[in-house]
Amino acid sequence: MSEVFKRLERDPIGTRAPLVTILDSAGWNDAGLMPAIAQQHDSGEVLMMAWMNRESLKETLTTGRVCYWSRSRGKLWRKGESSGQMQLLKTAHLDCDGDTLLLSVDQTGPACHTGRRSCFYVALDDDGATVDSDALIDPDQLYASS
Amino acid sequence: MSEVFKRLERDPIGTRAPLVTILDSAGWNDAGLMPAIAQQHDSGEVLMMAWMNRESLKETLTTGRVCYWSRSRGKLWRKGESSGQMQLLKTAHLDCDGDTLLLSVDQTGPACHTGRRSCFYVALDDDGATVDSDALIDPDQLYASS
Repeated sequence: MSEVFKRLERDPIGTRAPLVTILDSAGWNDAGLMPAIAQQHDSGEVLMMAWMNRESLKETLTTGRVCYWSRSRGKLWRKGESSGQMQLLKTAHLDCDGDTLLLSVDQTGPACHTGRRSCFYVALDDDGATVDSDALIDPDQLYASS
Repeated sequence: MSEVFKRLERDPIGTRAPLVTILDSAGWNDAGLMPAIAQQHDSGEVLMMAWMNRESLKETLTTGRVCYWSRSRGKLWRKGESSGQMQLLKTAHLDCDGDTLLLSVDQTGPACHTGRRSCFYVALDDDGATVDSDALIDPDQLYASS
């Protein structure tokens, strides 16, 4: 963990640090990415996990519209650009060691490409897995105009 | 994404798959790990993100007590084994592409090694970062007996 995050551990509420210091010290992985968890701000539902690089995080903080880094497409991914199901940013937090983001968002419609509200629909138990939510929208409709 | 998870995308609520099939098809990274998000079951607060391998996930599902894989120590990490602040499992979900876990838990006391309830206490804005929660317990006390 970086010295910057080590110092923040014992700092009281209200302690400030410049954004450039934080982003220089954050725990980006070897690909320059970190996981970002999106949580619906009012219901508390965890919607999805995706990846951000420094550029996508800065854009998100500046514009208030969530932008990830698509590992499969190798480019910035402005959530909703093909589905219309965008995420507006309410708050963003880094964790104690600066390598994971938690985004509080207002999600329009389904967050998941399957048309479900949340990506977390495969419930596990000690014997198997069960699909435990249905699509809000047919996924063929979701991407029909893109 | 594996064929197993691709098929589940269009399956209705209640569709079951055997655990071994799911774990064989899940998106473990090159180190055999995947991120696991822990969320307090009643308040909805996202507490932390850590990593699981297949063994730690199976132990968690079997015992009902959350066990991660510690990347720094290179061994199973039964949450609370040194701090006493354990996590009891309520539910576990995989996401649509089978590479991220969401754990609904009952967390005793602080989840964070800093003594804070949640690890996500570094609030970001477009200009900087602000510490926005205080420790529930002095971290020197938290690990005093370990």
